[in-house]
Amino acid sequence: MEEQQKEFMHKAIQLSLLGSQDGIGQGPFGAVIVKDGKIVGQGHNMVITNNDPTAHAEVVAIRDACKNLGTYELQDCEIYTSCEPCPMCLSAIYWAKLRKIYYGNTRNDAAEIGFDDAFLYQEIPLPLSERKIAIEPLGREEAQEAFKLWAKKEDTNNC
Amino acid sequence: MEEQQKEFMHKAIQLSLLGSQDGIGQGPFGAVIVKDGKIVGQGHNMVITNNDPTAHAEVVAIRDACKNLGTYELQDCEIYTSCEPCPMCLSAIYWAKLRKIYYGNTRNDAAEIGFDDAFLYQEIPLPLSERKIAIEPLGREEAQEAFKLWAKKEDTNNC
Repeated sequence: MEEQQKEFMHKAIQLSLLGSQDGIGQGPFGAVIVKDGKIVGQGHNMVITNNDPTAHAEVVAIRDACKNLGTYELQDCEIYTSCEPCPMCLSAIYWAKLRKIYYGNTRNDAAEIGFDDAFLYQEIPLPLSERKIAIEPLGREEAQEAFKLWAKKEDTNNC
Repeated sequence: MEEQQKEFMHKAIQLSLLGSQDGIGQGPFGAVIVKDGKIVGQGHNMVITNNDPTAHAEVVAIRDACKNLGTYELQDCEIYTSCEPCPMCLSAIYWAKLRKIYYGNTRNDAAEIGFDDAFLYQEIPLPLSERKIAIEPLGREEAQEAFKLWAKKEDTNNC
């Protein structure tokens, strides 16, 4: 079992090396998603290739696994990622309901080579007024109408 | 100027109503991205439609704007979202380098109709050992190799 886990992490790290190559990816990050001992999704950073700032390795792997399995939830799956997920990827893992996370490098390792992961972890819990990106309320009264309609619906699946 | 801002928020709320309709979207969330007074991207929740747990309104809008503008960074843009972004969407906004966020409903409004946004805000700052989803280090030594190679590269753009 432990050997198999090391093998999955090795694959994630191989993807991180692939993701570092010019013309292929833009960061040394890779991830695989495993279900019942098999890889069901994988990814590496593709932000610049895809013009998609959300295309981090874990998000790419989650989308790949969901596509392959025809689902939007991955309850029975685990993710192996070559680096501790940034808050975007961590939140995506929560929304996808993955069971467990294995990670190689840490957020501080990522900070040392110039990525903003650790900064984002500091930023998110701050009161809105103290954050770097300005954030301002607008139109809550009108926005509430959609929430009220939703609250009246039956059989909703909030995700 | 203020009237125009209200109009953009109105559009985001209209998208949130569209995103609540069966067969179209799965949540009362909508967002638009604005550059130089024009909408350059928009989205509503499409998690179930697309089998993509990352397809929240803001992420869909960011992907749409990046595709339309042919870029992976949106420095000169603002986002109008019908609800305070969850940590995944907030982090995506940081990675995309958006200039400003306007929001309608709050994270607590979202919690009241059954969405996990407020829970996620509590979860992310926790020490790894206290989180709901188990997270475990594995293979850092091997993973470090990719980071060391990256650190040696020139002209990298960390995103």
